Amino acid sequence: MDSVDEFAAIPDFHQASAEQARARQRSLTKPPGSLGRIEELAVWYAGVRGRFPVAVPERGELVVFAADHGVAAEGVSQYPAAVTAAMVENFRAGGAAVCVLARQAGLGLTVVDVGVAGERFPPGPDPVDAGPASSNPATRFVDARIRPGSGNMYTGAAMSAAEVEQAIEVGRLQARSALARGSEFLIGGEMGIGNSTAAAALVSALGGVPPEEVVGHGTGIDAPTWRHKVAVVASSLERHRSLVGTPASPLGALAAVGGLEIAALAGLMLEGAKARVPTIVDGFIAGAAALVALRLAPAVRPFLLLSHLSAERGARRLAALLGAPAPLLELELRLGEGTGAVLAVPLLRAAVALQAQMATFAEAAVPDRT
Amino acid sequence: MDSVDEFAAIPDFHQASAEQARARQRSLTKPPGSLGRIEELAVWYAGVRGRFPVAVPERGELVVFAADHGVAAEGVSQYPAAVTAAMVENFRAGGAAVCVLARQAGLGLTVVDVGVAGERFPPGPDPVDAGPASSNPATRFVDARIRPGSGNMYTGAAMSAAEVEQAIEVGRLQARSALARGSEFLIGGEMGIGNSTAAAALVSALGGVPPEEVVGHGTGIDAPTWRHKVAVVASSLERHRSLVGTPASPLGALAAVGGLEIAALAGLMLEGAKARVPTIVDGFIAGAAALVALRLAPAVRPFLLLSHLSAERGARRLAALLGAPAPLLELELRLGEGTGAVLAVPLLRAAVALQAQMATFAEAAVPDRT
Repeated sequence: MDSVDEFAAIPDFHQASAEQARARQRSLTKPPGSLGRIEELAVWYAGVRGRFPVAVPERGELVVFAADHGVAAEGVSQYPAAVTAAMVENFRAGGAAVCVLARQAGLGLTVVDVGVAGERFPPGPDPVDAGPASSNPATRFVDARIRPGSGNMYTGAAMSAAEVEQAIEVGRLQARSALARGSEFLIGGEMGIGNSTAAAALVSALGGVPPEEVVGHGTGIDAPTWRHKVAVVASSLERHRSLVGTPASPLGALAAVGGLEIAALAGLMLEGAKARVPTIVDGFIAGAAALVALRLAPAVRPFLLLSHLSAERGARRLAALLGAPAPLLELELRLGEGTGAVLAVPLLRAAVALQAQMATFAEAAVPDRT
Repeated sequence: MDSVDEFAAIPDFHQASAEQARARQRSLTKPPGSLGRIEELAVWYAGVRGRFPVAVPERGELVVFAADHGVAAEGVSQYPAAVTAAMVENFRAGGAAVCVLARQAGLGLTVVDVGVAGERFPPGPDPVDAGPASSNPATRFVDARIRPGSGNMYTGAAMSAAEVEQAIEVGRLQARSALARGSEFLIGGEMGIGNSTAAAALVSALGGVPPEEVVGHGTGIDAPTWRHKVAVVASSLERHRSLVGTPASPLGALAAVGGLEIAALAGLMLEGAKARVPTIVDGFIAGAAALVALRLAPAVRPFLLLSHLSAERGARRLAALLGAPAPLLELELRLGEGTGAVLAVPLLRAAVALQAQMATFAEAAVPDRT
């Protein structure tokens, strides 16, 4: 995959539509700027979609990519690796946190096995025939397993270059699929025991940040396990120095210390951007994928909405690497799955609804400033 | 009104229900604490309602109290006082920001003239017969005007003691009315040119904070107007020193420098608390009303959910005076009307839905921590 050619197709943020939205905001019956980030969100959405007026985005889809991580064998998590597969079943049954949130927000939900270890899952409802994104609350399941878990970065590469490309392609395919079902925005979620280690290693490599600043407590490890996790990341990055490259290559870093679900998330974001469909980015793992996407194609940035500042140690550093605008919410979340991104959906809809439906000073005959 | 007797009926936060909710949270398929403030919100809601399990609060009502302020004559706002009445018509027609947000969130909306200046508004649909809170999207209108705007605090008292009691009673009546329609939570909104001056004066008096620390830029005044606004507040508080009292009395402060809509907001919060129905508190003006309510009856605090940290200058100081938990959102809002509180509604519903609908480790056969 030639990443430069492949992603040259990402369009520019449409300034003219954003300007029209901004002018509309100034005419609405409220003091200018008084809705703060909510106004900015609506203006941004018009620029992303490249049109004004722009409809309230009712249809959205959440795609949760699940994969295992060889590095889990190093004891970097407090949960056993078997949790990944068990949680895939929990997603399919609708019992996981993000399933509840997706139902509340009226989002379609697809779970993709891009690299879970162990036996293959039985097939689910046909993902193509399962209907439009939001009208069908059942979880779709897609078997796109590339390999049963990534390799252990501590002892070898996480993936081959070909596997990285395949995983990115899985994400891109899921984006196209969701777009074909009418999605006006995308959310990428993830599940994978060990993936906060991979994400921290990626952020360290691509951001030039020492591991101890971005390695976090994941699902809740204690201090000795955290120190061990830092050492595993530092040692892995040292081992793969030439594969990662100088300056760090996003594809090289993915192969060395990444994860199949993280590569797929980056693919989802890049493909959405090509179609002017934004991705709402969840927390630390999805944020690491966003950093990969940004390094592959800087033009992707306007198409990403950072939903929340995670409680994970490296989250603030990662948000700075991703650049403005800053995350919308700060709710001390550290679950992943896409949960924080889904919680931001009502804010996006509210922002666009305000822009579309509020009366202007002229329409309502409200006196303007003296 | 004997405030001690009147509000002695506020029940305690129900620790036993909160404990049951907390135990449930620990059993759900996520690392303990990984949903941060969202978990706390669900536990809090169980304790407020005094039951577990507790249903997702679908039915809620927003009551916007509108009143004018004599102090507007001192040039403390950049909008003319006539905006208050014009905005009441805008609320009635569904064109104001909070109308759009209430529709998005499926909330009932009632607008109450508790003290607008000028001609009386024509009657609206019968507020009693207009149906249950969320099933009827039309704005209800209630004429409960006590006087056509408060007095100018700079030259005299804002209200008499009797008017303060009447205004609080208007809020209490609206709370009872919303509860009778089935509301599971309340939101108090406000509209009144000049009310950020009254709110700042109240917070200064009740919080013992110098005016320059809590007087803000309201709808967007410039620096000279801000300095003038500070001087007006300082001079008004000096003039009414004996009426406010030492320590400051909440009823005395309302009479001296308060507002009819602020008193009504306090009444709404207090009456909701008596029925174990929480009020979601909006920004600086509603926060000042919450401070009044808290000083009248400290037991009200657990029944208040601070929705957002406003961009108004004194907001952080006010949040500290109201005490933990801190506001949920920080979106640089400074519009009022109840807008920030309505934006927090999906978070509350999501939190309670997660608590009610997520699978437990046992149900989903997900391995727990090692």
